[in-house]
Amino acid sequence: MSFVALTWMNCIRRHLLPKARFLHTLQVLQSEQILMSPSLASLDLPDIWTPNYSCQSSPAILKSGNEQTAMVLDGKLMSTEIRSKIADQVRQMKKCLGKVPGLAVILVGQRKDSLTYVRNKIIACEEVGIKSLVTELPTDCADADVQNAVMRFNKDPSVHGILVQLPLPQHLDEEKILDALCLEKDVDGFHPLNMGNLALRGREPLFTPCTPKACIELLIRSGVKIMGKKAVVIGRSNIVGLPTSLLLQRHHATVTIIHAFTENPEQITSKADIVVSAAGVPNLVRGNWIKSGATVIDVGTSPVEDLSCEEGYRLVGDVCYEEVVKVASVITPVPGGVGPMTVTMLLVNTLDSAKRMLNFT
Amino acid sequence: MSFVALTWMNCIRRHLLPKARFLHTLQVLQSEQILMSPSLASLDLPDIWTPNYSCQSSPAILKSGNEQTAMVLDGKLMSTEIRSKIADQVRQMKKCLGKVPGLAVILVGQRKDSLTYVRNKIIACEEVGIKSLVTELPTDCADADVQNAVMRFNKDPSVHGILVQLPLPQHLDEEKILDALCLEKDVDGFHPLNMGNLALRGREPLFTPCTPKACIELLIRSGVKIMGKKAVVIGRSNIVGLPTSLLLQRHHATVTIIHAFTENPEQITSKADIVVSAAGVPNLVRGNWIKSGATVIDVGTSPVEDLSCEEGYRLVGDVCYEEVVKVASVITPVPGGVGPMTVTMLLVNTLDSAKRMLNFT
Repeated sequence: MSFVALTWMNCIRRHLLPKARFLHTLQVLQSEQILMSPSLASLDLPDIWTPNYSCQSSPAILKSGNEQTAMVLDGKLMSTEIRSKIADQVRQMKKCLGKVPGLAVILVGQRKDSLTYVRNKIIACEEVGIKSLVTELPTDCADADVQNAVMRFNKDPSVHGILVQLPLPQHLDEEKILDALCLEKDVDGFHPLNMGNLALRGREPLFTPCTPKACIELLIRSGVKIMGKKAVVIGRSNIVGLPTSLLLQRHHATVTIIHAFTENPEQITSKADIVVSAAGVPNLVRGNWIKSGATVIDVGTSPVEDLSCEEGYRLVGDVCYEEVVKVASVITPVPGGVGPMTVTMLLVNTLDSAKRMLNFT
Repeated sequence: MSFVALTWMNCIRRHLLPKARFLHTLQVLQSEQILMSPSLASLDLPDIWTPNYSCQSSPAILKSGNEQTAMVLDGKLMSTEIRSKIADQVRQMKKCLGKVPGLAVILVGQRKDSLTYVRNKIIACEEVGIKSLVTELPTDCADADVQNAVMRFNKDPSVHGILVQLPLPQHLDEEKILDALCLEKDVDGFHPLNMGNLALRGREPLFTPCTPKACIELLIRSGVKIMGKKAVVIGRSNIVGLPTSLLLQRHHATVTIIHAFTENPEQITSKADIVVSAAGVPNLVRGNWIKSGATVIDVGTSPVEDLSCEEGYRLVGDVCYEEVVKVASVITPVPGGVGPMTVTMLLVNTLDSAKRMLNFT
């Protein structure tokens, strides 16, 4: 076996691939294939972060006795402003055409956080006059059931946006289901063609994914300069980290993407002017990860059990807020930062889609 | 006008957008649009680098009196090995099916470098038994002429790969022409759907663009570890820089993309374990840009006038070779590094396409 194959074996072993997949990879390496590069999907590994659950301030930060320096961005307030403009345009559309934008949501199973998210989206639609439809399917439904729901909404002319609430139960084929979604109604922007058009300069996606779009709008509205700045995105999920990095690059930031295999991530983040954290790991980003005066956007929303809350849990971000608020110059809170702005971007995408389909300007 | 709009104006002015486009952008900012985020295509700016034409060693490097330390990767030798395996499989295909893979090339105009590249591809096809077809069109041809050529090859069952030699003359609509190309024959992998599938974890593009694929294959064959390493890609072109960064990320490197708007790029590159330079700027990457022991892949191929050469010009890379060879541990030369491997990857993609279409394993 070649040196390279051995190196790969060690990499794979170290990250504990299931034995069957490991042996398959090994077989491929030993066979008479032309190239040594493996298939990309065979490379995919889960990003497993070491969580920090408690956010006890580090001695250095405590000793410094610094007070809060960061401006806290109010995502709710910004959303109110934007949603009032959306409501105006929906009213105009109704007046001129007798029609309103329609958003269809497909929800599979009973995940608590998904239920909350879907409810928030529906309420937001109602507030601005967008019609919403929800199809709820049981956890054990088949691929075909979800695909049929997608197809029905694809054909429905009163629906201008469709979203399948992720994550889906493990037994379902997410790729196949998302591929069935009509491109013109893909308001989440998760289709690979949309992602390609987001990545490629000179091109424009039909829809920009909502959370990345929310991050950029938060930055622009707060007067944070992006062009030429060092931006670090923590996490590389298909729905947040990846598209956020692509979008920041289209805005001419110098972008680095950090993931669970990155060595010494804090060395990289501490050089950044803008940090967007989307790892989904509570308290991952400590005070010493952040350069003094940096902008910190916290996308993380992990449910943590809290019996004092009505729902029995509360959402916490990736950022150790009490430490970072003393170091950064701009910060978003969780909740009340990126979350409401993400829902707002979904409303914008749905409105834009209706305007495009109904040829309404 | 808001603070943000003013900031944008300054950014746009500083980078000298044409006046009409500048005024249009301004109008958009002033209008009653819902979001402040501009359209992505309106953000696109050319990457203008300050070139360094001469590569006189910096005093520090000269004083150190270092000798060459880097292993020089021989792209020609690696290619010979891979191409001999391709030729074997083409022979087998001919024996079993009576068919060989076919590659169609569309060349518009008479650019000297494009003519050389196309000639090299045709010769490489002949050597491994792949059938090649070339359609040459005059510089002043219309979009429809190129599209018709694409369509003809789309329908031709003896053609398994089509490539439109880039860059096209300015008056042609590159996006429209590339979009006309049948996805199953897009051996260059430039279609946005391919790019999306390259970016998204869990997905697999039909074709990985040839130069990025060549870089990865060079790294793997040289035993350079990618996973967990800091990689910097210099340049963010749609055909090299962008897909290379995406591919390195799929291989679990921590990737930073540097472009012409990056401040102090040498500070970033000098921390990297792997540097892939694809800016197309001779001598951009100096010895002090590189960490001792790093791996340097030079994708740059700029034609520089040289009357002592048969063609009247020679190709030079982005890397100041005589400086960097003393600092790096692995380096690719220009010519003879990434270039021949890129042509080899085109042969691999064409063979793979034929195998897929003819259901030959």
